[in-house]
Amino acid sequence: MRGLIVGRFQPFHKGHLNIILDIFKKVDELIIVVGSAQKSHTLENPFTAGERILMIDSVLKKYDTHYLIIPIKDIEYNSIWVPYLESLIPKFDIVFSGNSLVRELFKERGYIVKKPKLFNRAIYSGKEIRRRMLNNENWEELVPEEVAKIIKDINGVERLKNLSRDDYYEN
Amino acid sequence: MRGLIVGRFQPFHKGHLNIILDIFKKVDELIIVVGSAQKSHTLENPFTAGERILMIDSVLKKYDTHYLIIPIKDIEYNSIWVPYLESLIPKFDIVFSGNSLVRELFKERGYIVKKPKLFNRAIYSGKEIRRRMLNNENWEELVPEEVAKIIKDINGVERLKNLSRDDYYEN
Amino acid sequence: MRGLIVGRFQPFHKGHLNIILDIFKKVDELIIVVGSAQKSHTLENPFTAGERILMIDSVLKKYDTHYLIIPIKDIEYNSIWVPYLESLIPKFDIVFSGNSLVRELFKERGYIVKKPKLFNRAIYSGKEIRRRMLNNENWEELVPEEVAKIIKDINGVERLKNLSRDDYYEN
Amino acid sequence: MRGLIVGRFQPFHKGHLNIILDIFKKVDELIIVVGSAQKSHTLENPFTAGERILMIDSVLKKYDTHYLIIPIKDIEYNSIWVPYLESLIPKFDIVFSGNSLVRELFKERGYIVKKPKLFNRAIYSGKEIRRRMLNNENWEELVPEEVAKIIKDINGVERLKNLSRDDYYEN
Amino acid sequence: MRGLIVGRFQPFHKGHLNIILDIFKKVDELIIVVGSAQKSHTLENPFTAGERILMIDSVLKKYDTHYLIIPIKDIEYNSIWVPYLESLIPKFDIVFSGNSLVRELFKERGYIVKKPKLFNRAIYSGKEIRRRMLNNENWEELVPEEVAKIIKDINGVERLKNLSRDDYYEN
Amino acid sequence: MRGLIVGRFQPFHKGHLNIILDIFKKVDELIIVVGSAQKSHTLENPFTAGERILMIDSVLKKYDTHYLIIPIKDIEYNSIWVPYLESLIPKFDIVFSGNSLVRELFKERGYIVKKPKLFNRAIYSGKEIRRRMLNNENWEELVPEEVAKIIKDINGVERLKNLSRDDYYEN
Repeated sequence: MRGLIVGRFQPFHKGHLNIILDIFKKVDELIIVVGSAQKSHTLENPFTAGERILMIDSVLKKYDTHYLIIPIKDIEYNSIWVPYLESLIPKFDIVFSGNSLVRELFKERGYIVKKPKLFNRAIYSGKEIRRRMLNNENWEELVPEEVAKIIKDINGVERLKNLSRDDYYEN
Repeated sequence: MRGLIVGRFQPFHKGHLNIILDIFKKVDELIIVVGSAQKSHTLENPFTAGERILMIDSVLKKYDTHYLIIPIKDIEYNSIWVPYLESLIPKFDIVFSGNSLVRELFKERGYIVKKPKLFNRAIYSGKEIRRRMLNNENWEELVPEEVAKIIKDINGVERLKNLSRDDYYEN
Repeated sequence: MRGLIVGRFQPFHKGHLNIILDIFKKVDELIIVVGSAQKSHTLENPFTAGERILMIDSVLKKYDTHYLIIPIKDIEYNSIWVPYLESLIPKFDIVFSGNSLVRELFKERGYIVKKPKLFNRAIYSGKEIRRRMLNNENWEELVPEEVAKIIKDINGVERLKNLSRDDYYEN
Repeated sequence: MRGLIVGRFQPFHKGHLNIILDIFKKVDELIIVVGSAQKSHTLENPFTAGERILMIDSVLKKYDTHYLIIPIKDIEYNSIWVPYLESLIPKFDIVFSGNSLVRELFKERGYIVKKPKLFNRAIYSGKEIRRRMLNNENWEELVPEEVAKIIKDINGVERLKNLSRDDYYEN
Repeated sequence: MRGLIVGRFQPFHKGHLNIILDIFKKVDELIIVVGSAQKSHTLENPFTAGERILMIDSVLKKYDTHYLIIPIKDIEYNSIWVPYLESLIPKFDIVFSGNSLVRELFKERGYIVKKPKLFNRAIYSGKEIRRRMLNNENWEELVPEEVAKIIKDINGVERLKNLSRDDYYEN
Repeated sequence: MRGLIVGRFQPFHKGHLNIILDIFKKVDELIIVVGSAQKSHTLENPFTAGERILMIDSVLKKYDTHYLIIPIKDIEYNSIWVPYLESLIPKFDIVFSGNSLVRELFKERGYIVKKPKLFNRAIYSGKEIRRRMLNNENWEELVPEEVAKIIKDINGVERLKNLSRDDYYEN
C-alpha cells in the first residue's frame, strides 16, 4: 500500500517525524509532498523547496520504509489541485492530512483520507519554531539534529531575522 | 442591445435573479459573466464555475430573453482585464455592476455603466446564505428552488461545513 | 442527457452546423466548448473566442435545443485538461469529438465518447474556408449566412489578408 | 559603476527624487526598476506601470546621469526573483533598497546592498499622498510638478476616488 | 558528492539505466530530474510525470545508491531555468547531460558538467521504443522488466496507438 | 510626438540603427520595445533581454533624441497584446513595425502604423549575423562596435556554438 502525506515543512520538525514514523508502520511506501514549493524567504515560509527536501531526506534516509519526496507548487485552483498532483506522482491508496481543505478535495475524488494524530502540537509546530528563531530561544530541540545542521549551514536563522527587520518602506 | 453583468454568484440567489429580470426588460440579450471562475472549495467561494453556471442556467432558461453565461477567471491585472474579457465574449453595449472597480475599469474604456438596484441587500447576499448554511439556518428561502436542488445534489452544505472545520494545522 | 462538443470553430461552418443539428436530436442539452480561446489573429486561428461565440450563437439560437457556449483556453497540460474543463462547465454524459487526443483524454476519465460523422469534409473545413478567403474565392457558401455577415462586420477577410502579407522581417 | 533601485512609485514623489539624486552622485548609470508592474487601479496601486514610467522619466530627463527605467511584474517566487530580474536588465554593481526582503534576496546572491537614507518619511510617502488625494488635501506639494500634471491629465485623483466608493457588493 | 541528471524518460529504458548505474559509481547521491513534467498523452511524450517517476523508482530501488526523483515542468525561459531548478532540489556538485542546451545553461552558472557515454544509442532510445510500440514490434527488450509491467498496467501501448489515429479533424 | 518600435534585436545591428536614426528625425521621443524578452540561449534568440537592452543603450546614448527601452515578454494572446503593452509603457502616437501581425494588431486598435524602410536587408539581419557567428565569418561588420564588444564580453559566439552542437539526445 502506498500512502501520501502533504505538508509545507517550514521547517521539518519532530512533530512531522513522529507522524511519518507512525505512517511508515501502516504503508509499504510513502509519497511526501512538499507543498507551496514556490514559496521561500517570507516569515511564514522561510525555506526553499530544495532546502526542505534536503531536511526531510537527511532525516528519513536512515529508516527502512521506501519513500519519495515531491515538491508541488500552489496552483490557486482548488478544483483541479488533486488531478494536478495525481499527474506528478505515482498512484497512491491513502491520504494523510491535518488540513480540512486537503481532506475535502481528496474525499470528493473518492480517496480514503485520514487525519494524523498530532504530537504535542503546542510546541512541535513550524510557527513555534520560527518564533523561537526570531527570539533567540531554543528551537533546535524541536527539530531533528540533521535539520538543525542544515538550517545552520544555510544561515537560516539570519535569513529569518533579516526578513523581519521593520524597515520595509512603502515606495 | 446587448448587456453585460459580472458576478461571482456564490451561490446564485434571488437578489441576483431580481436584478437580472430587471435587466432582461432593458436589453435584447444579456451576457452573464461568472467571475473568479478558478475559485471553489473555500468558505468565500464554495462552488465551481461549472456548478454556478448550472445554477444560473437552470433558473433562467424558463425566461424568454436570450442570454450567454461565460466563466472568466481572475487575471490579477486590472488594466488589461476589460480587453481580456472583450476577447472572450461578443460585443456589448452596456455594463451592469455593483462593484466600484469593475465600473471604473469599464468607464475608462468608454462603456456605459449602470449600478443595479439591490433588492433587500441585508439578506439576499452570498455571504448571508453561506452563513446560514454553516449554522443550519434556512438558506433555501434565499435562493431559487432550482439552485437549492443543485446545492443538495452536490452536497454543497456538507462541503462548506467540511471546509470550515477548525483543524487546519500549520505543517 | 447533456452532451459536450469541443471545437475551434475558425470559423463556424456548415459542417459544424450539420454535426450539431445531428447531436441536437440525441441530447436534451448541448455544451459547446470553443477551444483555443486565447488564440486569434493568426492564419490558422483568425477569430477571437468572442467572435466565434457570436457566430455560433447567431446561428443556433433559432433552434429549440438548449445549449451553452463556453470558451476554454489551451492549458498545454493534457493530463489535467479534462478536470480543468469539468471545473468550468456543468456535468455532461457524452462527448462528441473528431480529435483522437480529445477522445483519448475523455476515455481515460471514463466518459462515453463518440466520433461525429463528417459532412463532405473536403470542403466544409476551416482550412478550406480560410484558403478561399485569402484567394478571393467563394467562402460564403460554406458558412451559415449569419456567420458570413459577422465576418464582414469585423472585416475578417481583410484581417486574414493583412496577416498573410509576406513582409515579416526578422529583427 | 551601474546602480539599481527598486520601487513601486505609486506615485513617484519628492522622497524618491531625493534618493535618486543622491544615488546619481555615486553611480555612472542607474537602472530604475518599477516593481509590481502588473498592478494598477487599486487603492494601494492606482497607477499603471506605463503611467509610473512616464512620471519618473518626465522628472529625471532633465538631469545628466544616464538611467534606464524597466517595469518588472511580481512573480511571487522569491528564490528566483533576482535571476528573473537579472535576465531583464543590464548587469549592475550595487543595489539600493529600503525593503528588507529585496535586500536579503540580493545579499544571498552576493550583491552589495545599501539602504537609502529617507527624506522626511512621514509625509514623503505614496501612502500619505494617496490619503491626501482621497481627502482633498494638498498632495501636489509632495510630488514634482511634472508628476502632478500627469496625474491630472489621466484623472488620477478621480480614479482613486471612484475605486474607494463603498458600494462593492459581494455577489 | 551529489550528482544531477536531467531527462524526459519517455519511457525509462535500459540506456538510461546503464548511464545511471555508471553515475552511481561516481557519486554518493543522485538527483534524477524528470523534465517536461507537464507533458503527457502526445506521441513524443506519452507518459505522465507520475508514471515516469514510478518507472524509474521501481527499477532503481533495488540498488544501494541513494537518489531523489524530482519532476520539473518546462518554464520556457532558458535564462532562469537553472535557478528555478536550484530552488526545487538540494544542492548538487556535478551535472550529467547529453543535451547541449542543458550543458550550456549549467556551464554559464559555473557547474561542472559531464556528457554521459551512451550505450547503443541506435536502439536504446525513447524514440525507437515508441516506434516499436506503434508497430507491434518487440519494445519490451529495450526497457527493464519493471517498466514493461507498468506500461502494460496503464495500457500505455493502447494509449499511444489511440493518440496516433489519423482522424484528427481541424474544426 | 512619441513613437514606438518593436523588435527582438537578436542582436541589435546596423540595420536596426539605421531605422532608428531615421525615426529619431520624425519623433520627439522613441519607445523601443525589446520583444520576446523571456527568450534567450536558443539558436534563434541567443541573447537575454538584459543583454539586448545593454546593446541598444550602449549605441543610442550618444544621440540626442530621448528614448526608453522596455522589455516585453510574449504573452501568446494576440488580441490582448496591445493593451498589455499599453499598460507597461507611456502613451505613444505612432508605431513602426515591419511585422504584419504587429501592424494588424495596432491598426485594429486605431493606431497610425508605418512600415520602416529596410537597409540592405540581405545582410543586415539577425539571421545572417548568427549564421556568420556559427561559421567564423565576419559578423562584426554588421553590428555597431559597441555591440561587438558586448557580445565578446559575454562570450556570445561561444554560447551560440555550444548551443548548436549536434549531440542533443532524446532521453
